[in-house]
Amino acid sequence: MKLTQALTSAVQLRRDNVGTIHAGRSRTWKEIGQRVARVAGGLRRLGIEPGDRVAILALNSDLYIEALYAIAWAGAVAVPLNTRWAMPENAYAIDDSTPKILLVDRVYAEIATALRAAKSLTALVYIDDGQPPEGMLGYDVLLNNEPIDDASGADNDLAGIFYTGGTTGFPKGVMLSHANIIYESLVWIFALRFREDTRYLHSAGLFHLAGTSPMIALTLLGGTHVTIPKFDPELAMQAIAEHKADYCLFVPTMLNMLLNHPSFGQYDLGSVKDCEYGASPMPDALLVKLMRVLPGWRFHQGYGMTESAALATILPWEYHALEGPLAAKRKSAGRAAPGVEIRIVDADGTEVPRGTVGEIAIRGAGVMLGYWRKPEETARVLRNGWLHTGDGAWMDEDGFVYIVDRLKDMIVSGGENVYSGEVENAIFQHEHVRECAVIAVPDARWGEAVHAIVVPKDGLKLDPETVIAHCRGLIAGYKCPRSVEIRREPLPLTGSGKIMKSALRDEKWRGYARSVN
Amino acid sequence: MKLTQALTSAVQLRRDNVGTIHAGRSRTWKEIGQRVARVAGGLRRLGIEPGDRVAILALNSDLYIEALYAIAWAGAVAVPLNTRWAMPENAYAIDDSTPKILLVDRVYAEIATALRAAKSLTALVYIDDGQPPEGMLGYDVLLNNEPIDDASGADNDLAGIFYTGGTTGFPKGVMLSHANIIYESLVWIFALRFREDTRYLHSAGLFHLAGTSPMIALTLLGGTHVTIPKFDPELAMQAIAEHKADYCLFVPTMLNMLLNHPSFGQYDLGSVKDCEYGASPMPDALLVKLMRVLPGWRFHQGYGMTESAALATILPWEYHALEGPLAAKRKSAGRAAPGVEIRIVDADGTEVPRGTVGEIAIRGAGVMLGYWRKPEETARVLRNGWLHTGDGAWMDEDGFVYIVDRLKDMIVSGGENVYSGEVENAIFQHEHVRECAVIAVPDARWGEAVHAIVVPKDGLKLDPETVIAHCRGLIAGYKCPRSVEIRREPLPLTGSGKIMKSALRDEKWRGYARSVN
Repeated sequence: MKLTQALTSAVQLRRDNVGTIHAGRSRTWKEIGQRVARVAGGLRRLGIEPGDRVAILALNSDLYIEALYAIAWAGAVAVPLNTRWAMPENAYAIDDSTPKILLVDRVYAEIATALRAAKSLTALVYIDDGQPPEGMLGYDVLLNNEPIDDASGADNDLAGIFYTGGTTGFPKGVMLSHANIIYESLVWIFALRFREDTRYLHSAGLFHLAGTSPMIALTLLGGTHVTIPKFDPELAMQAIAEHKADYCLFVPTMLNMLLNHPSFGQYDLGSVKDCEYGASPMPDALLVKLMRVLPGWRFHQGYGMTESAALATILPWEYHALEGPLAAKRKSAGRAAPGVEIRIVDADGTEVPRGTVGEIAIRGAGVMLGYWRKPEETARVLRNGWLHTGDGAWMDEDGFVYIVDRLKDMIVSGGENVYSGEVENAIFQHEHVRECAVIAVPDARWGEAVHAIVVPKDGLKLDPETVIAHCRGLIAGYKCPRSVEIRREPLPLTGSGKIMKSALRDEKWRGYARSVN
Repeated sequence: MKLTQALTSAVQLRRDNVGTIHAGRSRTWKEIGQRVARVAGGLRRLGIEPGDRVAILALNSDLYIEALYAIAWAGAVAVPLNTRWAMPENAYAIDDSTPKILLVDRVYAEIATALRAAKSLTALVYIDDGQPPEGMLGYDVLLNNEPIDDASGADNDLAGIFYTGGTTGFPKGVMLSHANIIYESLVWIFALRFREDTRYLHSAGLFHLAGTSPMIALTLLGGTHVTIPKFDPELAMQAIAEHKADYCLFVPTMLNMLLNHPSFGQYDLGSVKDCEYGASPMPDALLVKLMRVLPGWRFHQGYGMTESAALATILPWEYHALEGPLAAKRKSAGRAAPGVEIRIVDADGTEVPRGTVGEIAIRGAGVMLGYWRKPEETARVLRNGWLHTGDGAWMDEDGFVYIVDRLKDMIVSGGENVYSGEVENAIFQHEHVRECAVIAVPDARWGEAVHAIVVPKDGLKLDPETVIAHCRGLIAGYKCPRSVEIRREPLPLTGSGKIMKSALRDEKWRGYARSVN
């Protein structure tokens, strides 16, 4: 199993089908296949040998997809950098993974120039249209080469290093093998009902597994990738309408932004048949609204993480019922994907009874090789073949998993566990709320207290007392926020579009110790 | 990845769903899960340690399924024996694989008693209802034990030895790993559209990968297995009607027998939504007839072999068109399954141009570890990670694979290649033909000559001249049989239901040398 197999399949099975669409430019799989072998030849000519790392810092594009396959084709290891990160975080990732080459687009050209101080880098290559900035090679230097034979690693060889956790402490490089990625792609294809004629809108960053993984899965079938540089509600709706995309993936915050956007309703989104969501908890009130407003979309939930090469559990659309016996399942993250094992365990790694909250542990072919050059951190999360996720959840008798919180997002107040997701879901039901986050803040009496940060919709008013009173009508008193902050600016997001709770917590915990952050 | 993962998933996700139905007896996945852990405890108590082999010689039943999982659960290696083989062939397989225990049902009790002379065997266990014959332990000796923890091997550990090729020369034990089988199961699920509520009729032997593989695939989803002891047209139709089976698998000869059976039309087969066929070439005339007579069935073709852990290419029902632009694809065996690589190669292993006949080579996670204790035979077929299948085929520009023949079934007459399948397809179009096989016979002038053996339908007449004249109207002169034999008895079949051409050839080639047999 090797990453390049996806490309080879696409070329063999659907060579005349359009593989990528970006900024008005389309290429067939045959063309892409030829270009990849030449770009790989260019990497080789620039000194890339099998096992070498090649980093990418760029927004989504067809060239990004091409580059990922070319890196594998040359036998090298991809290091996709997080486009949301600040300079020091990506500088750390480059120092840590020591790539020889950094591929960079126009938007990141300036940052890249600063990053080039890294000792390992021998070249910066511009993967964008037009003239390369000074000190960078143009993409044509890669492209204008003789094609080389596929020199991809295979099976348990390292295919990519995907950095996570950069928003708190040091980033960790998740090492994924070729087998990890190809196996997960099959799960993705099956569980999310990809077809060979699927037209997929990539609005999640390709540097992130939620972008990379469906990209590789759909390539295996020879489908069509529509890319937009990055998520923007208007751009996404425009791309769906223009290219008749029929499959999309959004995180809940993105879906919320779509619904609240002034242009929503002005674009024809009727081509979409399927929409996957995940990466952060879906407030049920938002999901219900989406199902009502977009009745033609079949929603599928995926739960997973970079360390599991994406999908671990799936809640397919059949379980997205508004009423009837299945409606309760809608609040779950679904069940183990085929070939993935899920257990809810206690601190010792022992499975807890159904209905009891514990930590989600995952075993399966998608589970990472480990963290790059971090054996201790690896040993902490990978124990006896099980990946310990840090996510708190319980499982019902039918195997459905209900995520209550990241364990670090759980608030322990006076000995009671309060799940921030539950509180957020209550707050979200208030009509005036656009965004919210519930975090633990230090409390002299209770250890931790429930604190809410709320962003009202434009032009609407909201005050702390209203929010607290609203919650009292919906959830137990000890779960209700003890303090509420009203903000006008949007909440900070991670690269994958989740609210960056660690940053919000950091503001409150300066000078305090918290066991998990 | 481990075989027991399928069972664990079924119990976790669908514990109250009926997992097996056999002879009027149903068990839920929860019950099956509990029984398997106890049967594994029994195997352990009888001295089975991880890595030991346990052989099974039995017709299909719920106990067969249970036993396969129990063997894996105890960490042992399954050796399913071919129920069609004569004693000496299974005696060879037992001597070769040295199992400690042989599980056997009523039908094979007598043979098993003869087989027990094998030095490695320490016990015979009766897996059937009623009292065990003398000298055998009863199934309750396995079942009435404390459950043990899952001690299954994983990933590249050996899961089973599946013997093939017993009808010519020495049988070879195909070694399949846990990863081989689980990975192929995912392909099966995806490519053949299994659902969690699929009710699958097992009419192919569970000893054969065409039985084992869908069994494990559907267990991963927690579906329902309906077993009949072995294929019999009436029994199969009865089981479909009684249990409302919605998925079945038949080889072409079985489908032909169904259509020609006097009771066809007396059973309600309307519950069937999907039917997979494969294992031997499908005569197009038969396929067209099936599509017309059973318009509610969606036909899917799978091509593969034990050495590839079953499926390698798939032709889904969308390509089973009677007319229009897709109709030509119907004559193919489909395209590479996701995650499987297919190439058509020449004798040196170099890929040939599209449209040129060569040998099918397969690479992918399903490809066997090798032949048990046969390093030379392994090296002959597994070269640079590619499995060389011995099947001749060409590939079209869209990646569809058209199998022309087993290379050994190809007839080389006066320097021209004649594909026996093409000739058989022509003969089949004669209304009076029930069965036919075309083979090479020695010919002093041409090296080999085309010879046909034809079985007419009951009560209908056919003579050699008519057959030859019929062929002349359909195919080129050099492809037409030069001699035709009319037989009244059915043609001999292999364990997987294919016509045993090697046996037919053997009659003709005694005293002659043929380079491939």
